[in-house]
Amino acid sequence: MSGEVKKSSKTQENVILIGQKPVMNYVTATLVQFNGGSPEVILKARGKAITRAVDTAEILRNRFLKDVKVKGVQIGSEAITIEGQTKNVSTVEIVLSK
Amino acid sequence: MSGEVKKSSKTQENVILIGQKPVMNYVTATLVQFNGGSPEVILKARGKAITRAVDTAEILRNRFLKDVKVKGVQIGSEAITIEGQTKNVSTVEIVLSK
Repeated sequence: MSGEVKKSSKTQENVILIGQKPVMNYVTATLVQFNGGSPEVILKARGKAITRAVDTAEILRNRFLKDVKVKGVQIGSEAITIEGQTKNVSTVEIVLSK
Repeated sequence: MSGEVKKSSKTQENVILIGQKPVMNYVTATLVQFNGGSPEVILKARGKAITRAVDTAEILRNRFLKDVKVKGVQIGSEAITIEGQTKNVSTVEIVLSK
């Protein structure tokens, strides 16, 4: 069974969730995805991490993988509940392709 | 000269530059543009204001003008020089249309 590539229907291998870590962590993670053969990588972020997602895409394109294109950017909202309070948080999805 | 509104040849009326003010200021500014007859409004932001630009678009769409669509989102970089040091800053342009 070795060599079998299992893909769950929900997990997407090529999705990078952008959080609070330094931006270079996400640039590296994206590089690893592309170098591992993914033709497309999706950066997802919410709230204040949105800026970091854009930074990740730009640093990658300008410094590391100049052939990577921004295929699309989508914005949206999610309702999140923190300590009983529901509030809307903005989200972004940046689709990068080689 | 009071009351004179000077417009440079470069200013685009339907562009809202998102800065450090509270997000509702920009939501209101965008609303005013649309209510003044603009079919399209462009939100531009750099650096940390990128998140606020996305928030502006989302609050507008979800609460105030439900018929407004996100026509496109573009990301990019600009080199800015502060105190002799040049660094790249990410930018975003969100095109909203009615």
